[in-house]
Amino acid sequence: MQTRFNGIIAYPITPFTADGKIDTATLQLLVQRLIDGGAHAIAPLGSTGESAYLTDAEWELAAQVAVSAVAGRVPTVVGISELTTAGAIRRARYAEQIGADAVMVLPVSYWKLTDAEIIAHYAAIGAAIRLPIMLYNNPATSGIDMQPELIARICREVSNVTMVKESTGDLQRMLRLQQLTGGSVPFYNGSNPLAMAALTAGAAGWCTAAPNLNAALPLALVEAVRAGDLARARSVFERQLPLLQFIVQTGLPTSVKAGLRLQGIEAGEPRLPLQNLGPERTAQLAAILQTLAD
Amino acid sequence: MQTRFNGIIAYPITPFTADGKIDTATLQLLVQRLIDGGAHAIAPLGSTGESAYLTDAEWELAAQVAVSAVAGRVPTVVGISELTTAGAIRRARYAEQIGADAVMVLPVSYWKLTDAEIIAHYAAIGAAIRLPIMLYNNPATSGIDMQPELIARICREVSNVTMVKESTGDLQRMLRLQQLTGGSVPFYNGSNPLAMAALTAGAAGWCTAAPNLNAALPLALVEAVRAGDLARARSVFERQLPLLQFIVQTGLPTSVKAGLRLQGIEAGEPRLPLQNLGPERTAQLAAILQTLAD
Amino acid sequence: MQTRFNGIIAYPITPFTADGKIDTATLQLLVQRLIDGGAHAIAPLGSTGESAYLTDAEWELAAQVAVSAVAGRVPTVVGISELTTAGAIRRARYAEQIGADAVMVLPVSYWKLTDAEIIAHYAAIGAAIRLPIMLYNNPATSGIDMQPELIARICREVSNVTMVKESTGDLQRMLRLQQLTGGSVPFYNGSNPLAMAALTAGAAGWCTAAPNLNAALPLALVEAVRAGDLARARSVFERQLPLLQFIVQTGLPTSVKAGLRLQGIEAGEPRLPLQNLGPERTAQLAAILQTLAD
Amino acid sequence: MQTRFNGIIAYPITPFTADGKIDTATLQLLVQRLIDGGAHAIAPLGSTGESAYLTDAEWELAAQVAVSAVAGRVPTVVGISELTTAGAIRRARYAEQIGADAVMVLPVSYWKLTDAEIIAHYAAIGAAIRLPIMLYNNPATSGIDMQPELIARICREVSNVTMVKESTGDLQRMLRLQQLTGGSVPFYNGSNPLAMAALTAGAAGWCTAAPNLNAALPLALVEAVRAGDLARARSVFERQLPLLQFIVQTGLPTSVKAGLRLQGIEAGEPRLPLQNLGPERTAQLAAILQTLAD
Repeated sequence: MQTRFNGIIAYPITPFTADGKIDTATLQLLVQRLIDGGAHAIAPLGSTGESAYLTDAEWELAAQVAVSAVAGRVPTVVGISELTTAGAIRRARYAEQIGADAVMVLPVSYWKLTDAEIIAHYAAIGAAIRLPIMLYNNPATSGIDMQPELIARICREVSNVTMVKESTGDLQRMLRLQQLTGGSVPFYNGSNPLAMAALTAGAAGWCTAAPNLNAALPLALVEAVRAGDLARARSVFERQLPLLQFIVQTGLPTSVKAGLRLQGIEAGEPRLPLQNLGPERTAQLAAILQTLAD
Repeated sequence: MQTRFNGIIAYPITPFTADGKIDTATLQLLVQRLIDGGAHAIAPLGSTGESAYLTDAEWELAAQVAVSAVAGRVPTVVGISELTTAGAIRRARYAEQIGADAVMVLPVSYWKLTDAEIIAHYAAIGAAIRLPIMLYNNPATSGIDMQPELIARICREVSNVTMVKESTGDLQRMLRLQQLTGGSVPFYNGSNPLAMAALTAGAAGWCTAAPNLNAALPLALVEAVRAGDLARARSVFERQLPLLQFIVQTGLPTSVKAGLRLQGIEAGEPRLPLQNLGPERTAQLAAILQTLAD
Repeated sequence: MQTRFNGIIAYPITPFTADGKIDTATLQLLVQRLIDGGAHAIAPLGSTGESAYLTDAEWELAAQVAVSAVAGRVPTVVGISELTTAGAIRRARYAEQIGADAVMVLPVSYWKLTDAEIIAHYAAIGAAIRLPIMLYNNPATSGIDMQPELIARICREVSNVTMVKESTGDLQRMLRLQQLTGGSVPFYNGSNPLAMAALTAGAAGWCTAAPNLNAALPLALVEAVRAGDLARARSVFERQLPLLQFIVQTGLPTSVKAGLRLQGIEAGEPRLPLQNLGPERTAQLAAILQTLAD
Repeated sequence: MQTRFNGIIAYPITPFTADGKIDTATLQLLVQRLIDGGAHAIAPLGSTGESAYLTDAEWELAAQVAVSAVAGRVPTVVGISELTTAGAIRRARYAEQIGADAVMVLPVSYWKLTDAEIIAHYAAIGAAIRLPIMLYNNPATSGIDMQPELIARICREVSNVTMVKESTGDLQRMLRLQQLTGGSVPFYNGSNPLAMAALTAGAAGWCTAAPNLNAALPLALVEAVRAGDLARARSVFERQLPLLQFIVQTGLPTSVKAGLRLQGIEAGEPRLPLQNLGPERTAQLAAILQTLAD
């Protein structure tokens, strides 16, 4: 289980200008801020990055700007959430071409997919690029739930699927995946409130949008677990848990964009039909951020 | 509850050529065949029509070809399943421009939508066109489940949302909607195996892809219920139920395309990651179609 | 598909005295009232009858009083909801001994049961009595969901399981069961809001507690469907639907006992932890009953 | 958060003789074995102990024998899973009378309970005894799912509900409960595969039947977490995880009784409709136990 992706995999939101275009300057700023905050890898165009809501041109622009902004200082993994295999391949090739280090691929359903269809989807993307692929399971957004047995099979059959991100919030899935792969496939936690449990259980990293709003506490959790300091891990985790719960409950792009605005960074609104956080929830978020800053 | 849409609302699949392009000639043929079979309305680009899998250009071409092929002989309702409000509006305006009689709008989720976001989505589309809108609830494909209370509210608040298609397969939803609207909003059954129950319960119509493979039996069911002939309704329904169950279980585009091929019409493959039906399931479908033809 | 059980299978509640004992006089009164109201069969000790909440002695007393009160005027089917096979057999034998015409058996789970365990449960009860058994599927109360395939198998393997009551509220289950048994096993609807759909689909009867509060409308629905008068069926069904929805939503023993009190019959309280309906809900029920009495 | 219950809360099965009676001698043996294995508390008549399947007389006998066998060497908590409040009170009083240190109370549903009904159930039991009560949430067996908000409220309102056992397998529930109670209510993990995560998250103990088959590894996990030795915790947890997964998947009484038989202790069969593990699954269990013994 060797990988360049370890620790905090930070997910920038995709900022929009007032007229709804990709705000490249703010995206550069956000990437820089995440790296300054200690992120071990940058993952543009994840769920947080509204990947699924962008046109091809917008997605390509955001990918190119983010990867360039990272400039090789840490590895990059670019998110792809496309309904069609052809669309996923097109974006994966683009990511490879602009120098991303990996792609993260979420199969998205309209019509439910059979296991054979999911495997073929990954195989086709895998064959089209040389980059490593992070398989991403997130049924709440994608409508497709890949069980550990299927995930392990895809890892065996598609040679460049070498990492797994689990976002079901079910720790037992991660344990089962570890068993099925003999620990040979690094897995990543994508469910923020499970971060401490996943890291203590052996997750290679934590895929999270939280560092957009507070970089120190997620990093401190990773470091405490690495150091085997359980008391400190529990303490820093409990401290940040209200923030993690809040951003998950209200939706990552929505809440992170509201939080950035509170911190003086204008990243625009999420794309309709997604609406902004609204005053009441924004006040709650402000209160949470305030306690973390104290 | 007055509407031009009554009885069989037939959903053509979207045929592809061998190289994956819209097969306009076959689409014209399929539309003609559905009208010849007695369909009371034509609904291109529904779930059956792989609406969500098409590029804007493909969707526009298919919509234009289908509406032209109908040529006003029966009303048309064009399906829209877009993740963004802007994308849905663009397609709705196009449908209006080419002379469709209505649009059917399914909100699609990646991030879950609040009620306010769903209402605003319909309101924005409603404000952009003059056509009537058929609200479409199909959580299994869209990831969004609109309860009867929300649907009734949207019908009240968005004046051109005048029809509701329910595809949850839960008859009680339809009964509840009738109660909440005082019967003023015509509702349509989108769950094939519920067709008889929904029609006897007062559904204005049955939205179905079955007529692509057998037009006579769905029509006979509608006519038997209209005539109050319960014994005949039950008989014709039981006869076609295995077909309805099969196409739902295996996915409508997949199974209908396989069935058309069995009937000598080459409509191509569903779009990847969707795969074709495969030999074993195709043999089962052939057997079912054979019994209906006897 | 021959059976003595057809039409309205009426479920009396089990009345309690103020000190929590079985109120035998009121139970006799309720049974008489249901027969006077036209019930085609009487089913004491169903879910409505709080069967699962009674000691063996209480259950036996209630069963004996109810069967005696019917006095053979219509058939009786006595409900059994026991966690252990031994307990179910004991009650089934008692029902046979006191002259019941059938037993209705709901397997109840604490630890989930395998299909083999469920089959063996029915087989053991079937072997212990000569009475016909109505298999009862109601996962919401029992924690066990028997799919149509399993139910059909039990009907094949256990010779005196000759009737099936489905209470999932999923009409497709009933259609599937009809297919699997070739229509040879009469099925009964146990989901009140599905009554019209189930009867038009061919249900042999409707298992319902509604006649405790209004006997005329359920009977009128059955008669309208039998007569093939769809318009009248829809009309009488829509009229009673608010009552059906209400008693299901608030729990049958709770709501029926409250309704009886409104009608001047004191049947006591449901057994703790179940509480009575409370003033607010009781006022809603009174309003619904008033509209039906107009 | 002070409690006498910490660490391994071990759940003996309830052994039966060949003719289905409580096997008191074997129960004494099992209790002794658990204490010898280092259990910090003994919990007879849990889900593992088939509490819900026993008559009052059987339950009382098993409770009395188990508590006597412990003889005060470690604290005892006796499980109560009764459908009626009266039945739960009767058993709780008996437990108090025979000298148990606490009772564990699982509300069990047939008709779904409102929050008010659940609260009143605990309040009535709480008022009837002086013992502390461990609230037990296990929707998979009981049909009742108490959310953390409700649990926290019960802990506030019923003074002797002082401990919470969570068996949903959802770690976030435990974190939320900690937040809601400010850490003042000790919580216990009842989901075996979550043991390490729950303990690292601060659980006061682990309620488990695993020590019936292997006492050393669960104890080693608790000790490693207490010592803050994360590497060792992970190692001993991974070692025992296959056993934990197996006994959960196949049902605790079923699998533990099979395992005891493999270890030379005849504890009889689970009570029908529960069946024994069967030869194929028993062979799997034997293989797992063998690897742990190596």
